[in-house]
Amino acid sequence: MMSNLKVPYLLTPGPLTTSHATKAAMLRDWGSWDDDFNRVTADVRAQLLTMAEAASDTYACVPMQGSGTFAVESALACATDPSGKVLVLMNGAYGKRAAQLLAMMGRRYVTLDKGDYLPPQPDEVATLLQQDADITAVFLVHCETSSGILNPLDAIAEVVRAHGKTLIVDAMSSFGGIPISLTKTPIDVLISSANKCIEGVPGFGFVIIRQTLLAAGKGRAHSLSLDLYAQWDYMERTGQWRFTPPTHTVVAFQAALDQHREEGGVPGRCARYTHNRDVLVKGMRALGFSTLLEDQWLSPIITTFLSPTDPAFEFKTFYAALKSRGFLIYPGKLTDVESFRIGCIGQLDAAVIEQLLSVIQDTLTKMGVSLFSESRSA
Amino acid sequence: MMSNLKVPYLLTPGPLTTSHATKAAMLRDWGSWDDDFNRVTADVRAQLLTMAEAASDTYACVPMQGSGTFAVESALACATDPSGKVLVLMNGAYGKRAAQLLAMMGRRYVTLDKGDYLPPQPDEVATLLQQDADITAVFLVHCETSSGILNPLDAIAEVVRAHGKTLIVDAMSSFGGIPISLTKTPIDVLISSANKCIEGVPGFGFVIIRQTLLAAGKGRAHSLSLDLYAQWDYMERTGQWRFTPPTHTVVAFQAALDQHREEGGVPGRCARYTHNRDVLVKGMRALGFSTLLEDQWLSPIITTFLSPTDPAFEFKTFYAALKSRGFLIYPGKLTDVESFRIGCIGQLDAAVIEQLLSVIQDTLTKMGVSLFSESRSA
Ligand SMILES: Cc1ncc(COP(=O)(O)O)c(C=O)c1O
Ligand SMILES: Cc1ncc(COP(=O)(O)O)c(C=O)c1O
Repeated sequence: MMSNLKVPYLLTPGPLTTSHATKAAMLRDWGSWDDDFNRVTADVRAQLLTMAEAASDTYACVPMQGSGTFAVESALACATDPSGKVLVLMNGAYGKRAAQLLAMMGRRYVTLDKGDYLPPQPDEVATLLQQDADITAVFLVHCETSSGILNPLDAIAEVVRAHGKTLIVDAMSSFGGIPISLTKTPIDVLISSANKCIEGVPGFGFVIIRQTLLAAGKGRAHSLSLDLYAQWDYMERTGQWRFTPPTHTVVAFQAALDQHREEGGVPGRCARYTHNRDVLVKGMRALGFSTLLEDQWLSPIITTFLSPTDPAFEFKTFYAALKSRGFLIYPGKLTDVESFRIGCIGQLDAAVIEQLLSVIQDTLTKMGVSLFSESRSA
Repeated sequence: MMSNLKVPYLLTPGPLTTSHATKAAMLRDWGSWDDDFNRVTADVRAQLLTMAEAASDTYACVPMQGSGTFAVESALACATDPSGKVLVLMNGAYGKRAAQLLAMMGRRYVTLDKGDYLPPQPDEVATLLQQDADITAVFLVHCETSSGILNPLDAIAEVVRAHGKTLIVDAMSSFGGIPISLTKTPIDVLISSANKCIEGVPGFGFVIIRQTLLAAGKGRAHSLSLDLYAQWDYMERTGQWRFTPPTHTVVAFQAALDQHREEGGVPGRCARYTHNRDVLVKGMRALGFSTLLEDQWLSPIITTFLSPTDPAFEFKTFYAALKSRGFLIYPGKLTDVESFRIGCIGQLDAAVIEQLLSVIQDTLTKMGVSLFSESRSA
């Protein structure tokens, strides 16, 4: 096994670098049927409601085995009315995936497709809701991780509420790292997963959902495994997960929640991620890189940088060089332009980002890439 | 955190007691997109094909995020023809669940329901296949964990082959612990998971499937997340999982596979489990307990014991007493009779079973339960 010293930092949207304490919580086996484990499940569910500022008599938190997409699929199946219509706001891969999920389930939907990185605007949403009275729900990705854009959640939520529609938010990569209050912002369904801003290890997602929507979702699921209502109902009755839970992942997540609280909860974590992002963006711009997005749309989660146009730059070589120096970055996900992404989430601080910046500078020099011919964003 | 000394042995069908080495493999974070992790995935897939004695040009191994049921659901959706009909052999909870899955997917099926613990007989299967030419596939649970019965896989597989039908086997609780050779036994689809006889931690399942069936399954899935064909296709093209993999669980599984090999592979592990079972059954009978099943049907995986009829016996008290002494047993799953189950799989040997037996004897004495009035099975 590789020694810990050689394990690279994960500058990705997750799975990310987690603390030793989180991983060490996995050094024990748990009976999935036993009360000790049921208490862990109950605690995790309660803590997530608290983090979302979601009243426990109005909302429920339902974990779901599998990756984040499994949780999105189960949430859409439960919370969208088969006789309704969903407006999907798209500006990247995860909005597109939601549309694909709805298509596959045979749910009706329309899209507002803003391309790779433009934000959906509240007034556009208002116009669409006015034009099409059939729309019953709106789907929004909070931080669209494929570009790193932070979409205007609060303003869109107000528009959706004003029209009396259901709002479903994919907060996969933002929940726990960016403040979201279900008391202040009218969100009906919020989806996230263990291995993003709460800094757990991957293995399950969770849905925070209005209890009335859960009840309405009974019998709607297209899949036995992904039946959110049935998972909730079974958990309420028995304290257990309906099918075998990823016990070690759940216990690691509980440890990660402890550390999240110790860091000052969401505001504390948001401050660290924002500082990471600021140091990163400033340093990269000083090296001559441009961000895809203007400053007002940059999330503290992950930032897309345009690849240098200098032919000496090749992503594979750049990636391998950074990896050999202890940093894993992430490829871009844009249709038109070459880009790459650097994440600011996980067990990283400004010192790590500074190290990364100096390794990037060094690597560019070795690759013979010159950046100062590039056009630079503000 | 509880000290390791106080962590109970899991005498359950899994999640089970795993080795420290397996859990320690989770003390590192992996980039889910990186080559290092892709190599782990490729290695695990190849090792599973070898374990099943499945030719790598004929079969593929496709892992699937989530619990074992998620893998069964994805396998049934991929491998059953929407215009076909499945014969589901049922003698417990997992056969019933397969029928439920097919019903939910809108696939046609018929059942042979043998109740709680009688084995489906090869000649009964032959008769049904002769009577109903519409049947295209047969579903069998190898070890029906709800009673612990080991169903006659080889004989039934021969009948299914003789009729030219597809055989789908839920080998969740047996694969890796009981020899199964896809070279010798005509099985088209075999499903298992990480946290059973290979002794990994829970978080994913896997399907070993004839490549022609995979190809035929393209576009058949009722779920995006559980699309087995798409998972396979993406993995073949990129080396990566289609959606975020449970990285730590996968790496722990690779470590568990190493230890499985060191123990002498499937025969080695089967010998240990069988010995555990023999010591357990002999000891329990000596205490006055009866097994649900006759000896010929007992699996080396888990054994069902009938609860004593003495009114001084109460399962909850018995369970709690054993737990406080370091052993977690499992409740029964029979419709008619009170029972409980004791598992023989996981990091347990005869010495652990002997300790358990003496704790059981002690507990019965303290509870004032007298067993020698019970009728005893051979
Ligand atoms: C916003 C968003 N939605 C959905 C997903 C899908 O999650 P997963 O890869 O765990 O299925 C991701 C993953 O990064 C994401 O960032
Ligand atoms: C034979 C069999 N099939 C299916 C399952 C379901 O697996 P899971 O609980 O991981 O969904 C089990 C679980 O014990 C099993 O023993």
